[in-house]
Amino acid sequence: MNSSCLFKSIAVLFLFFTLQSTAQKKELYNHLSSDVITISSKILNEDRTIYVHYPKPDSTNVNKRFPVLYLMDGESHFDMLSQYTDYLSRWDVSVIPQMIVVGIVNTKRTRDLTPTKSIINYFGQPDTSAVSWMKPSGGSEQFLQFIQTELMPCIETNYKTQPFRIFAGHSFGGIASIYCMLTHPDMFNAYISVSPSFWWDGEYVIKLADKKLAKGAMLNKTLFFSDASEGVSDGSSFHTNLLKFDTLLVHKELKGLDYKYKYYPTETHMTEPMVAYYDALRFIYKDWKAPGAK
Amino acid sequence: MNSSCLFKSIAVLFLFFTLQSTAQKKELYNHLSSDVITISSKILNEDRTIYVHYPKPDSTNVNKRFPVLYLMDGESHFDMLSQYTDYLSRWDVSVIPQMIVVGIVNTKRTRDLTPTKSIINYFGQPDTSAVSWMKPSGGSEQFLQFIQTELMPCIETNYKTQPFRIFAGHSFGGIASIYCMLTHPDMFNAYISVSPSFWWDGEYVIKLADKKLAKGAMLNKTLFFSDASEGVSDGSSFHTNLLKFDTLLVHKELKGLDYKYKYYPTETHMTEPMVAYYDALRFIYKDWKAPGAK
Repeated sequence: MNSSCLFKSIAVLFLFFTLQSTAQKKELYNHLSSDVITISSKILNEDRTIYVHYPKPDSTNVNKRFPVLYLMDGESHFDMLSQYTDYLSRWDVSVIPQMIVVGIVNTKRTRDLTPTKSIINYFGQPDTSAVSWMKPSGGSEQFLQFIQTELMPCIETNYKTQPFRIFAGHSFGGIASIYCMLTHPDMFNAYISVSPSFWWDGEYVIKLADKKLAKGAMLNKTLFFSDASEGVSDGSSFHTNLLKFDTLLVHKELKGLDYKYKYYPTETHMTEPMVAYYDALRFIYKDWKAPGAK
Repeated sequence: MNSSCLFKSIAVLFLFFTLQSTAQKKELYNHLSSDVITISSKILNEDRTIYVHYPKPDSTNVNKRFPVLYLMDGESHFDMLSQYTDYLSRWDVSVIPQMIVVGIVNTKRTRDLTPTKSIINYFGQPDTSAVSWMKPSGGSEQFLQFIQTELMPCIETNYKTQPFRIFAGHSFGGIASIYCMLTHPDMFNAYISVSPSFWWDGEYVIKLADKKLAKGAMLNKTLFFSDASEGVSDGSSFHTNLLKFDTLLVHKELKGLDYKYKYYPTETHMTEPMVAYYDALRFIYKDWKAPGAK
């Protein structure tokens, strides 16, 4: 008899039929343990879809609790962060703790992730079009209220959470993350800001940082921020804005702000999250030791 | 009414009950499309479990075919490579083509991934113990025959494959990948060797490379290899072996071998695959352009 290629739980006769049926194939391998939940938000007046990835249950420690990483652009980067946190916390890798990843799926991205109403576009020009994509901007305050008063209680009631929370975002999500650190410092312990769109509304977030951060202030926060080739490839001030923010942090002589700025000139705006989220997790947990480790 | 946190397709009454039922939660979010298949191998005289990840079907191009990445240590790195290839080939990232990832799950890892029978351990000492883990070594030739004559035909019959194939491995999988390039150059087009265990059997694979690769030979292959802090952290020749192999390739003045060696001194043997597999994919496809791209 020749060697045969059999799909588990499927009769040989149906082999080729089944192989062509995508619906049946999809559930045969279970990559990671994750939920899809829906929150009917009173604050945002809409249903929000949330993805939640959690560590595999450990029968020897059923009461174990985990830090939570809240991730913007859930539909884009939830698979990535789920895989990263799972791999890096595996017993034989063990450089970060196991954690819960909460991916917030966008409905009106520009509305939620921008701090102010603005029609000044990336090139510094006003976009006066009646159908401008920038019209529904300036909703970050409500979005953060949704996270604080509706999403967090839901996650903390239903999952085994620790108090340590990370807020992570890319592009507009990058400014939303830093905006949150400046305006609601009680919500998170650590922030990841991958290629923040500091250009928004005449560098509003950089100016806000200058205003909100008192010289020598004690923050007790961890912050990782980064950018890629954006400023070089399009001749904009994208990169110089990051340098400006970095310099501002230095001049503020802040206490208890453990931060790192990383520049990836060979990555693009869209490849960068893969390397930046990895480096950010390693940075946040650089001093972490696995329980029992030497 | 207060905002409520509802699980899709689940009645409110059963909310907390359901949240505690792991079995029901697991399938609510589907990370990626993958199969588990079993091959009854005549060559290895055992059943082999294979994970297969494939791009989501594209209704506008149902006949699209994909390169295939064959990955050793499937149980360790299949989630990672599946997520990497999916993300990097997304329409809005698009720096590599969509591909199929075939994860080969180990049964007897040392047997399959080592080229020779040897009892010389990592520290150069003979391990004469009757129960030595090194006893069942030297089975790479049979393992490659299994891949060539049983696994590949199964994948090529059941999935939409292109002829371009990559062979990827870590540690013992790293030497198995290079051993395959040297002894069965017809099987793959590109090779990824993350921290190859060149120490095996008195640097057998390096000596084999010196013997098999004629000076100035035309290979028409792509090769990425790397190591991390191994040699530094344990004082062994792990790192110097990589340098030796790199020097050998230079001296051979090979034609058509597009290769890159990368050293990650700040990564460990187990964190390195996360950065090395990323860099390897970017290297193999550095000249790739998405169809229709400028």
